[in-house]
Amino acid sequence: MNLSACLGIELPIIQAPMAGSQGSLLALAVAQAGGLGSLPAAMLSLPDLRAELGRIKAGTDRPYNVNFFCHDTPTPDARRQSAWQSALAPFYQELAVDPAGVSAGPGRLPFSAEAADVLEEFKPPVVSFHFGLPSAALLARVKQWGAKVLSSATTVDEARWLEAHGADIVIAQGLEAGGHRGHFLSHDLSLQMGTFALLPQVVGAVKVPVVASGGIADAQGVAAALALGASGVQLGTVYLTAHEATTSRVHRAALQSEAARHTALTNLFSGRPARGIVNRLMTSLGPMGGQEVPEFPLATAAIAPLRAKAESLGRGDFSPLWSGQNASACREASAADITRALFGL
Amino acid sequence: MNLSACLGIELPIIQAPMAGSQGSLLALAVAQAGGLGSLPAAMLSLPDLRAELGRIKAGTDRPYNVNFFCHDTPTPDARRQSAWQSALAPFYQELAVDPAGVSAGPGRLPFSAEAADVLEEFKPPVVSFHFGLPSAALLARVKQWGAKVLSSATTVDEARWLEAHGADIVIAQGLEAGGHRGHFLSHDLSLQMGTFALLPQVVGAVKVPVVASGGIADAQGVAAALALGASGVQLGTVYLTAHEATTSRVHRAALQSEAARHTALTNLFSGRPARGIVNRLMTSLGPMGGQEVPEFPLATAAIAPLRAKAESLGRGDFSPLWSGQNASACREASAADITRALFGL
Repeated sequence: MNLSACLGIELPIIQAPMAGSQGSLLALAVAQAGGLGSLPAAMLSLPDLRAELGRIKAGTDRPYNVNFFCHDTPTPDARRQSAWQSALAPFYQELAVDPAGVSAGPGRLPFSAEAADVLEEFKPPVVSFHFGLPSAALLARVKQWGAKVLSSATTVDEARWLEAHGADIVIAQGLEAGGHRGHFLSHDLSLQMGTFALLPQVVGAVKVPVVASGGIADAQGVAAALALGASGVQLGTVYLTAHEATTSRVHRAALQSEAARHTALTNLFSGRPARGIVNRLMTSLGPMGGQEVPEFPLATAAIAPLRAKAESLGRGDFSPLWSGQNASACREASAADITRALFGL
Repeated sequence: MNLSACLGIELPIIQAPMAGSQGSLLALAVAQAGGLGSLPAAMLSLPDLRAELGRIKAGTDRPYNVNFFCHDTPTPDARRQSAWQSALAPFYQELAVDPAGVSAGPGRLPFSAEAADVLEEFKPPVVSFHFGLPSAALLARVKQWGAKVLSSATTVDEARWLEAHGADIVIAQGLEAGGHRGHFLSHDLSLQMGTFALLPQVVGAVKVPVVASGGIADAQGVAAALALGASGVQLGTVYLTAHEATTSRVHRAALQSEAARHTALTNLFSGRPARGIVNRLMTSLGPMGGQEVPEFPLATAAIAPLRAKAESLGRGDFSPLWSGQNASACREASAADITRALFGL
């Protein structure tokens, strides 16, 4: 089934939720342009979530998506946190940053009953999850108001699992995709496939509509994904340089430079593998760190002051420069222009 | 430019050369079906190369391709060879194999003046290389009789290099592809991209025709590759189960089982990263080994007796079960049927 018909949108495209790089403004712009705009909620407090949902509700009567992570919240491990700060010590020293103020708290919160309470006030027509699905009870609450539920699969097994556990649409997330990998059944990264291999095998394995993500950057990419059996596409990277995104200046510059040709999976910025443009931290420590890196999302806090200081100097050395492997279409433009261009409009 | 017009073939498809799994029989069958059949020469002695070329010449007047590796021949390192045999010792013991007879010689030979002499007798219309290109002098010899020259690029930089150094056609080898990665400018595997990201960026970077490889398995995959700007496609995995291939029984069985869902890059079988179905050796030692693995192609010899013994027992535990990430279309059929099906014929 075509994604447009399934979700009540004009164009079969989902703007990928990108926590830290966008809010309601981008989601609204994409919704108004005919695609499905997404609000990433993982890094929002409950009051902020309510405020952002209010802005969307006030700004459009078109469908929109709210995205949540659904990881288990880890217990902070003092020894690991200390090993992590030791690994970062030379950088603290170099940038004259005091790590004493670093909090061990989570930088990202999973979907919760409290978040569901806020959602219920707005009843968003689409809710998507990353890292699997929330508990059956929480999922039932979302489905109660008729929301369509989406989640990402990085393997055929994950696609089958999502379908069996209530996903209405599966996003096949190819290895080219930027940001956090959505894997949840296994942490073995060798199981993950490129879009060209993953997408048709997922389409063949499940009955629900499949959305393609990873490596798609332009109208030809959209056409290719549809040729491979996708019902629609999800793009993130190309929206990072939209006027309406909150992407930092260093991140925008990196996306539009030759540096964007070299991305890698790294767990240094959060504790889970995510694809970003290779920068100094990744070159120095990894890009995939070992036991010294705290569990997701606890690695983030210790990086934050380094990132802030470096960015204030105009450098992205310690910033997560999330990007997929195809940033070739990134340009400063309105989200509406970007969306329409993807369909040759 | 369309690959068919460029190479004088009916269908814009190249059967990927697969040393160890096929010879002239498969190349001939694909040529007769309208595609470009390929003879892999890397593991052929000069007399065998001459005999195989003779069979092709006698069997068809259609274009065909001869493929060579062009790596530097390494000097055997006794200490590394001994470390490698130590790593394999438990398996020698388990299978009652005597490693004393293991030779340290190369399992695969690069293109050479002697090979060019043999080629010149036949003047094949297409010659393809893996791991870059041979020396300018050797390349000039091949071009002298008008052969079109192809080679694989795994990054945009490699594509530009190949075009600048005389390749008439560039094969964009996505990370999904089975067998040996063709990278030659850098050994950093994080530089390599999935087909969905690599292909359009290579198409945008060079003027010569670009052939897509990696993850393509069926007519939809062919259509998607063409939508992304490819002039044609190169497929290997789907031909491994062709009647005319010499693929072993254990390899054929693995390709048509659930096991084919999990491939990985491994250097254990040759010394260079290549994609194969995860098996016991890969699980036990790697799949990517370190300094104990001899340089390409010297790792092969020590594995050979283990492979032979295990295969005689019907097990692929020590066999290189080369496969791309999309083996979903593998079936026992004639190469002609396989080729035509890729174009909905």
